[in-house]
Amino acid sequence: MAAKRAGNSKFLKEYNESVVLDLIRTNKAISKAELSSITGLSATAMGVITASLIGKGYIHEMGTGESKGGRRPIMLELKPDSFYSAGIDMDTDYIKAVLMDITGKVVNNKCIDMLVPPSFDLVIKKAEKLVVKMLEEQSLDFSKLLGIGFSVPGMVDSLTHKIVLAPNLEWENADIRQSLTILGDIPSYVENESMSSAICENWIGLCSNVGNFVCINIKSGIGAGIFTGGKLYRGTGGTAGEVGHISVDENGPKCGCGNYGCLETVASSRSIVERARRLIKQGVVSSLNRFDDVEEIDLDAVIDASRSGDEAARNILNEAARYIGIAVTNLVNTLNPSKIVLGKEFVKYADLVIDIIKGVVECKALKDPAERVEVVASEIGESASALGAAIIPLKVLFKYTL
Amino acid sequence: MAAKRAGNSKFLKEYNESVVLDLIRTNKAISKAELSSITGLSATAMGVITASLIGKGYIHEMGTGESKGGRRPIMLELKPDSFYSAGIDMDTDYIKAVLMDITGKVVNNKCIDMLVPPSFDLVIKKAEKLVVKMLEEQSLDFSKLLGIGFSVPGMVDSLTHKIVLAPNLEWENADIRQSLTILGDIPSYVENESMSSAICENWIGLCSNVGNFVCINIKSGIGAGIFTGGKLYRGTGGTAGEVGHISVDENGPKCGCGNYGCLETVASSRSIVERARRLIKQGVVSSLNRFDDVEEIDLDAVIDASRSGDEAARNILNEAARYIGIAVTNLVNTLNPSKIVLGKEFVKYADLVIDIIKGVVECKALKDPAERVEVVASEIGESASALGAAIIPLKVLFKYTL
Repeated sequence: MAAKRAGNSKFLKEYNESVVLDLIRTNKAISKAELSSITGLSATAMGVITASLIGKGYIHEMGTGESKGGRRPIMLELKPDSFYSAGIDMDTDYIKAVLMDITGKVVNNKCIDMLVPPSFDLVIKKAEKLVVKMLEEQSLDFSKLLGIGFSVPGMVDSLTHKIVLAPNLEWENADIRQSLTILGDIPSYVENESMSSAICENWIGLCSNVGNFVCINIKSGIGAGIFTGGKLYRGTGGTAGEVGHISVDENGPKCGCGNYGCLETVASSRSIVERARRLIKQGVVSSLNRFDDVEEIDLDAVIDASRSGDEAARNILNEAARYIGIAVTNLVNTLNPSKIVLGKEFVKYADLVIDIIKGVVECKALKDPAERVEVVASEIGESASALGAAIIPLKVLFKYTL
Repeated sequence: MAAKRAGNSKFLKEYNESVVLDLIRTNKAISKAELSSITGLSATAMGVITASLIGKGYIHEMGTGESKGGRRPIMLELKPDSFYSAGIDMDTDYIKAVLMDITGKVVNNKCIDMLVPPSFDLVIKKAEKLVVKMLEEQSLDFSKLLGIGFSVPGMVDSLTHKIVLAPNLEWENADIRQSLTILGDIPSYVENESMSSAICENWIGLCSNVGNFVCINIKSGIGAGIFTGGKLYRGTGGTAGEVGHISVDENGPKCGCGNYGCLETVASSRSIVERARRLIKQGVVSSLNRFDDVEEIDLDAVIDASRSGDEAARNILNEAARYIGIAVTNLVNTLNPSKIVLGKEFVKYADLVIDIIKGVVECKALKDPAERVEVVASEIGESASALGAAIIPLKVLFKYTL
């Protein structure tokens, strides 16, 4: 294959450009001499490549660096605000949109709350409008938009980018690409929500340069994106990472999936809220009794109560955390990752419970993999999937495997 | 990088040869014209490569194939009995040795039973003698031996091939390569036992051409080798696959690792035997009462009793299988693999319990990944690690990543 590709000079030209572009991205600022040294390409060849990248507008010269003997070298970096990428995170109760420049800097974002799970057509319509509005607010036209990534809470066919099934949205066999009207000519990509978050952590979050990690999204449901060997691991049918259905208590509550004691039934935001409501109904002593209608108790109320020293609320969060610790222990033993990042709504109360999770892992996981793993709360939180979706067109530009 | 490598013609020559060699291996018999068509290399270039491989003795012409219009093409195949590879599986109670030819055919094998966990030096000495003996019996000299692979029940540093820790053998920081005396000049490789079995299933077993699979070894302990995207997944510290420590019963027995209800404590061969002995001591009705000394009850006795219709014995195996099903369910949901192969001592009683395991997965795993996974008993069984170890030098020859 190498020989066949080498005969195709256009392929190699593009490949070399994308490698150099990515080196400039990961090094932040780098000279042509350093690029030559890293790639083994001649100074002449590197001159041609960087001139092409400057001509396309992706990079620019940004002053001189430190001299290593001779002239002070001219440093190259990605050109901020040159090109952009949009990310849309669509869920049952919101549509989040972000606009990011080529360097990963977020320049605009929008969020629409949904009261009821929206129809597919409505979401697409609103998503297109959000992208157009963000572009307008930044005074940008479509030519500056590299692409749009869509994050969906469901199963996506990674080849066709069709949504196979998004159960909570009740979407089946939905084709976003075919449904775009205003943005139909912009390259678009569709990705599972948990995998989008993992892409985000890997590109701009806590897992850049981390080959093996698991990014667990905790909200109404629980799912994960898994990276192995530096690449997103999708599994055979694209459903890898369903850690919300790791059974952590064989005698636990029945899950929607049919099994009992799935992590989701005892540690999701929804299960935390349901448990709080149940306990209040049962008359437990708690500041949450101030709610006239238990249905008004939400995750924020439980967290606030816990922060104010409410023992019942604290116990609810601690119990959920203990179960997360059991599932994380399984992942540590099975996958021996460098990092496990806990994100989405979890970041709202991470400071209250992260030590409980770490304690369970330390106590229950095998010594060696436990010593090598860092269990951390995401620093990005609830926007991770929208950001991850926006990163997908950038990965395409930098010629990464999706 | 591509450009740098392309400038190194020796690298490309070796690379092209290994690609062609592997195509000949995987296609069993193939013509030069077909090889040209697959690789995109010219007939002349392919002639040079295949002549070189014939000259080295790896392949030979084996008659003519079917004509597709013109002359009947000369077919090439790996040359059986041209070169060999040895595999050694070392454990607490045995040393297994196999000698395999370049095609994967086993030409000799030996096994020594050990009554007590042997010292490192003794095992190395005996292993060397076994290899020499197998070569002698086949009338082969060292020049025909491509290399030796060692399978170890413990943690191996995949870069240095040193044994970090093999707890049951009480070996720590042991260096097989440095300890070889007779075979010191032969390339040697050291691999974890479960990963060796997975390598075997991938090369000559049920998982050739399967990208994502888990090979679970069930014997006195339980461990797994995981393949993702066609490659062995080692994890960050090389300990990925410790599925024996997936917790399947929070209130279960205490495990050596400190956790409770690990799969190993309720589904390993040892736990099956211990449970049988305990029940007999408690006076349960069973044909196993024929043993004057319960300590004489071993796995084979429990299996034989079960086959003879002994209900107590059957319940013990069924219960172990149910727990295996729970752990397999976790793996199916988390990794979405195409296959889960259960091997080693499990193959002795697989026919009795495999349907129970499949039933648990069908009932408890998520629908989509459950439909895409095949849960099967290995067809190789207890020799899988020795065979996998022998395959490692072949993978090196065919330029696969280890």
